[in-house]
Amino acid sequence: MPTILGQNQYGKAENRLVRITRDGTTHHIKDLNVSIALSGDMDDVHHCGSNAHVLPTDTTKNTVYAFAKEHGVASAEQFGIHLARHFVTSQETIHRARVRIEEYAWERIPRGGDGREHSFVRSGRERRVCEITYDGGRWQVIAGLTDLTVLNSTDSEFWGYVKDRYTTLKEAYDRILATDVSARWRYRWSADAAPMPDWDAAYARARAEILAAFAGTYSLSLQQTLHRMGTAVIESGDLVDEIRFSLPNNHHFLVDLEPFGLKNDNEVYFAADRPYGLIEATVLREGAEALIPVDLTLV
Amino acid sequence: MPTILGQNQYGKAENRLVRITRDGTTHHIKDLNVSIALSGDMDDVHHCGSNAHVLPTDTTKNTVYAFAKEHGVASAEQFGIHLARHFVTSQETIHRARVRIEEYAWERIPRGGDGREHSFVRSGRERRVCEITYDGGRWQVIAGLTDLTVLNSTDSEFWGYVKDRYTTLKEAYDRILATDVSARWRYRWSADAAPMPDWDAAYARARAEILAAFAGTYSLSLQQTLHRMGTAVIESGDLVDEIRFSLPNNHHFLVDLEPFGLKNDNEVYFAADRPYGLIEATVLREGAEALIPVDLTLV
Amino acid sequence: MPTILGQNQYGKAENRLVRITRDGTTHHIKDLNVSIALSGDMDDVHHCGSNAHVLPTDTTKNTVYAFAKEHGVASAEQFGIHLARHFVTSQETIHRARVRIEEYAWERIPRGGDGREHSFVRSGRERRVCEITYDGGRWQVIAGLTDLTVLNSTDSEFWGYVKDRYTTLKEAYDRILATDVSARWRYRWSADAAPMPDWDAAYARARAEILAAFAGTYSLSLQQTLHRMGTAVIESGDLVDEIRFSLPNNHHFLVDLEPFGLKNDNEVYFAADRPYGLIEATVLREGAEALIPVDLTLV
Amino acid sequence: MPTILGQNQYGKAENRLVRITRDGTTHHIKDLNVSIALSGDMDDVHHCGSNAHVLPTDTTKNTVYAFAKEHGVASAEQFGIHLARHFVTSQETIHRARVRIEEYAWERIPRGGDGREHSFVRSGRERRVCEITYDGGRWQVIAGLTDLTVLNSTDSEFWGYVKDRYTTLKEAYDRILATDVSARWRYRWSADAAPMPDWDAAYARARAEILAAFAGTYSLSLQQTLHRMGTAVIESGDLVDEIRFSLPNNHHFLVDLEPFGLKNDNEVYFAADRPYGLIEATVLREGAEALIPVDLTLV
Repeated sequence: MPTILGQNQYGKAENRLVRITRDGTTHHIKDLNVSIALSGDMDDVHHCGSNAHVLPTDTTKNTVYAFAKEHGVASAEQFGIHLARHFVTSQETIHRARVRIEEYAWERIPRGGDGREHSFVRSGRERRVCEITYDGGRWQVIAGLTDLTVLNSTDSEFWGYVKDRYTTLKEAYDRILATDVSARWRYRWSADAAPMPDWDAAYARARAEILAAFAGTYSLSLQQTLHRMGTAVIESGDLVDEIRFSLPNNHHFLVDLEPFGLKNDNEVYFAADRPYGLIEATVLREGAEALIPVDLTLV
Repeated sequence: MPTILGQNQYGKAENRLVRITRDGTTHHIKDLNVSIALSGDMDDVHHCGSNAHVLPTDTTKNTVYAFAKEHGVASAEQFGIHLARHFVTSQETIHRARVRIEEYAWERIPRGGDGREHSFVRSGRERRVCEITYDGGRWQVIAGLTDLTVLNSTDSEFWGYVKDRYTTLKEAYDRILATDVSARWRYRWSADAAPMPDWDAAYARARAEILAAFAGTYSLSLQQTLHRMGTAVIESGDLVDEIRFSLPNNHHFLVDLEPFGLKNDNEVYFAADRPYGLIEATVLREGAEALIPVDLTLV
Repeated sequence: MPTILGQNQYGKAENRLVRITRDGTTHHIKDLNVSIALSGDMDDVHHCGSNAHVLPTDTTKNTVYAFAKEHGVASAEQFGIHLARHFVTSQETIHRARVRIEEYAWERIPRGGDGREHSFVRSGRERRVCEITYDGGRWQVIAGLTDLTVLNSTDSEFWGYVKDRYTTLKEAYDRILATDVSARWRYRWSADAAPMPDWDAAYARARAEILAAFAGTYSLSLQQTLHRMGTAVIESGDLVDEIRFSLPNNHHFLVDLEPFGLKNDNEVYFAADRPYGLIEATVLREGAEALIPVDLTLV
Repeated sequence: MPTILGQNQYGKAENRLVRITRDGTTHHIKDLNVSIALSGDMDDVHHCGSNAHVLPTDTTKNTVYAFAKEHGVASAEQFGIHLARHFVTSQETIHRARVRIEEYAWERIPRGGDGREHSFVRSGRERRVCEITYDGGRWQVIAGLTDLTVLNSTDSEFWGYVKDRYTTLKEAYDRILATDVSARWRYRWSADAAPMPDWDAAYARARAEILAAFAGTYSLSLQQTLHRMGTAVIESGDLVDEIRFSLPNNHHFLVDLEPFGLKNDNEVYFAADRPYGLIEATVLREGAEALIPVDLTLV
C-alpha cells in the first residue's frame, strides 16, 4: 500500500454545557462549549473500520456532562484538565487528549434586593477560550480570547514605509486604529505536581493588560501595538511564557466631503469590512519555546 | 400589459458610519449602520429603465456621510429624522423615506487619568436599532433591540397545556427560561411640531424595563413573560404606544445522568440550538393602533 | 389595565427534518427546515400564564416528524398544507396556522452503475422556501427562493439619474450587474376544492423564468431588471398572481490601475460587501391583491 | 528586555477580486478572495514602530489587482505563484510569502443561442481554496476545498467500539453517514524548474476522487471513509503527496415515532447541529513529509 496514515484525532466537538450551581437562592452559571479531540493507537479504524480501540465520540460527550456533575466547573481550564486526564489515563489506546473550551460571560440582572439571584444577561462581546493538551506526561495550557474589539480615535500614525511601483497609500499622521483582538497565551504550568494557578484571575489579568497596552500605546504601526500588548502580558507576572496575536486592521477611511463643500477634520469615517490588514505575531519570554500554532486564521 | 407595479422602494443599505466628536482630548464615538429606503413616483424606472426620477443610491450614501458632518449624530433617532426629512422634502419624486439604523455600543477603556480619553472597547451583545419613516406628513419612530440574551435559572414552570396524540412533553415545575430578546417599540412622537424626546434615555428606560420584567416575573409560560415585559415598557411612561417581541425559547435540556449513577438536580443542562420555540406578540396601549409589522422573523 | 394584546403567534421554529424514501436500492431524500407559527384564542396564556389553550411547541415539533412518516413529503408545499390543515382543524383554540419551510437541494453522486443510488451531494446555493397559511377557510401559498446569486458582465448601464448637491456618481455605460435574488411569489391556489398544482414544477418554472429574464434583459437599472423578472414569472402561466423581490445591488467597482501605468478595460473589479443598493418591489397580475409583506429585509 | 519576537507575518487579507476576460461576446469570470501574508526582517516595526522594512498592506492589495491585469488569472494557483514570487524577489526585507485564495464557482445561464455569453449564476456550495508559500527557494502548493456536503443514506455501520462507564450509544447497523468535507492536499511541485501542472484539472480530479470514494465505501466508521478518500486522491496520480481532512460527523438521529403508534423504518431523521463528531487525519504517500498543519479547525 503506497500510503501511510499521518497525524489524526477525533472526538465530539461543540458540546454545549450550561452548569448551574445553586447556593441557596443565589445561583451561579457556567456556560461552555466543549470540544474533545483524542489521538492514539488508531491505525485499525482508519485502515479497516475496526472500532475496537475507539471510545465513541458520543461517550466523550456523555463524559463532559457527567464530569460537570461529578467535578463541577470551577473554571474552564480546571474542567478541561479533569477531562483530558480522564481520557488519557482511563483508555489504554488514547495517548493524547486535547480539550478546547469556549466560555460565554453572563452578568447578573440587578434585582430589588429580595436575595433571589438567578437572573442573568449575556455580557461581553469577546469569547474566552482555553485549550488543554495532555499526553500522559506533560500538560499544555493555553488560554485566550477572540474578538475583543478595540479602537483608538487618535494617537496612531503610519508613515516611513517602503514604496514600490504599486504603492499609492498616503502617509497618515493621525488615524483611527481599530482591531478585533484574538490572542492565545500559554501558561507555564505543565505538570500535575505544580500548584494550579487561579485561572480566572490569570485570564482577567491578561485581558486587562491587553486593553491597557492598546489604549496606552502611541502607535506607529499595528505591529508595534501588538508587541506592546504581548510584552505587557508576559511582564505582568511569571505565568505566561508565550502569547500569539491575530489582529485584523479594521480600516476606517476618512470620507472625502470636499465635493459637498465640507471639511472632514477626522470626524466622519467609513468603516470597511474587507479587505483588512492582518497582523500576526508571537511574543515569547526569553528562553521559552514557541508552541502556539503560528496560524490562528484560515481562509 | 397584464401586470402592474406594486409597492416598491430602493436605497443604499448598510452604510457603515463612525462619527468621532473631539471635545479637546476627550473623544466621543457613534458607530452606526444606516440603511435608506425611498419610494415615490417610480413607475418609469421599473417599466423602461428611465432614471429621471431616481436619486442614485450612491447619493443616498453620500448624504449619510455629509449629514454626519453637517448635523452631527446626537442620537441615531435624531440622525434618522434629519435624513428622512431631507429625502422627502428635497426631492419631488420621493414621497416616503424610511431610515433604519443599527447602533453598536462602545465603552471607554479606563486610563491612568491623563485626561486623554480616546480609547474604546465594544460593549454589549445586543444591537440597538431604530427605524424612522416619514411621508411628508406624519412620522413613525420605532426603536428596539436585537439579541439581548437573558436567562432565569429557576422561577419558570410549564404545565397544564393541551395534550393531543402527538404530545410527549413532560410537565415542568422548575426549568430554565432563556431567550434572545428582539423587540421593536413605537414612540408616540409623530409630528415635527411636537418636542423631541430624549431618545437615548427612552431607549435605556425600555431596555431596563425589559430586563427587570424578565428577572422579576415568576413565569408560567414565555408568553406571560413577554406580556409582562411589554406592559412594563408601556406603563413606564407615556412615550411608547406599541411594542412587539420576537422571543426564541432557547431550550436548556436537563441531561439524563442516571445511566452514570448520578442525580441531576437541575444542575447540568444541554443548551440546544434548533429547533426552538418562537413566541411573538404585540402589546398595545389601550386605544393605540398596531403599526409594527407582525413578523420580525423570516425563514 | 391600560394595555391590550395585539397580534400574536407561537410555535416551534427550525425543525430540521430529513426524510429518506427507499425505493429498493434507489433512495430519495427531502431535506427541510420547518417552522410552525400558530395563533388563536391565546389571551389567557399571555395574561396569566394559563396554558389550557396552548398546544406545546414540542407537540408541533413531534407532529412535523410524525407527519413525515404518515403523509410522506411529496413536496414542501404539500407537506406544509397537511400540517397547517391539521393544526387548525384539530385544535379548537387554534384559528390560524402558518408553516414556513426552507428546502435544501441534493443531487446524486454518480456511481458506476451498480444500481445502488443512495449517495448525495448538496447542490445549489439558493435556498428554496415556501410559506403556507390557513385560517380554516382560505389558503395562502407563497413560494420563493433566497440568495440566487447572478451576474451579467455587460449589457448594464446606469445614467440619466437625478443629480443633487450630494451626487458624485459617474454615469456608467457598461457595468457589471450582480445581485442575490430573493423572491417570494404567491400562487393562485386558495381552496381545498381546487386541484393542487405540481408545486415542484411551478418552482422550477419560476426559477427558470427569473434566470432567463436576468440574462436576457439589457438593463438600464436594476429596477427594470426586477420588473422584467417579475413579469416573466407572472406571464409564464396563470398560477402566480404576485411576486416580490428583494435585490441587493452587489457593487463591482472597476479598480483604478492608472497609477500603475495600466489600463483597466472592464477587466479587473473589486467586489464590495457593504454598502449595497437594495431594490425591492412587487409585481402583480392585473386585478390581483398585494398580500406578500412589503419588507423582506430587516436591519 | 525579557521578551523576544517569535514568528510573525502580515499582509492584506480578503481582497475580493473579480476578473472578467472578454473573448468577443463570450466572457469568462474568475471570482477570488485573495489573502497575502508576508514575513521577513520585521524586528524593527515590532520593537519601535519603524516601517522602513514594511511594504504596506495597501500595496499588497494594489499588487493583487494590478497582477490580475498584467498576468491574468489562468488559475488561482498560478495567480498565487506570480504574487508570492513577486513579493519575495522584489523586496529584500521579505523572505517568505504565503498567498491564500478562495475561489467561487460560477456557471453560465443558458441563453437562446445569440452567442452573447456574459450571464452567470453562482454554483456549487463548496469553496475551492489554495495556499501558495514561497521562501525564495522552495514552493509549497496546497489546494483543497471547504464544505463539500455529502450524505449516504445507507451502507454505514458503527459498532464494536470501546464501552466504558459513560457509554450509552447503541450500536448501529444501518445509519446515515453525512459530512461537510474540508480537505487540503499538497502537490509535489516545488521548484520553478519543474513544469507546472494543470491546476484546474488536478483540483477536479481530487474532488471527483473524494466524491467517488465517499459514495463507494461501505463504511464501518467515518475514519475508514476518510482514509479511503485520502488514499484515492493520492493513488489517482503522482501529483498529490499528502492530504488532510477535517470531517464533522453530521449526526442524523432516527426520530422515535413509537409514541405515535408509528414505525420509523430508517425514514424520518432529525438533522442535528451540535455537538458533532469531528474526525481529522492526514494520509501521506509513502516516504512523503507531513507538512499540512494538523489543525484545520479552531474553536
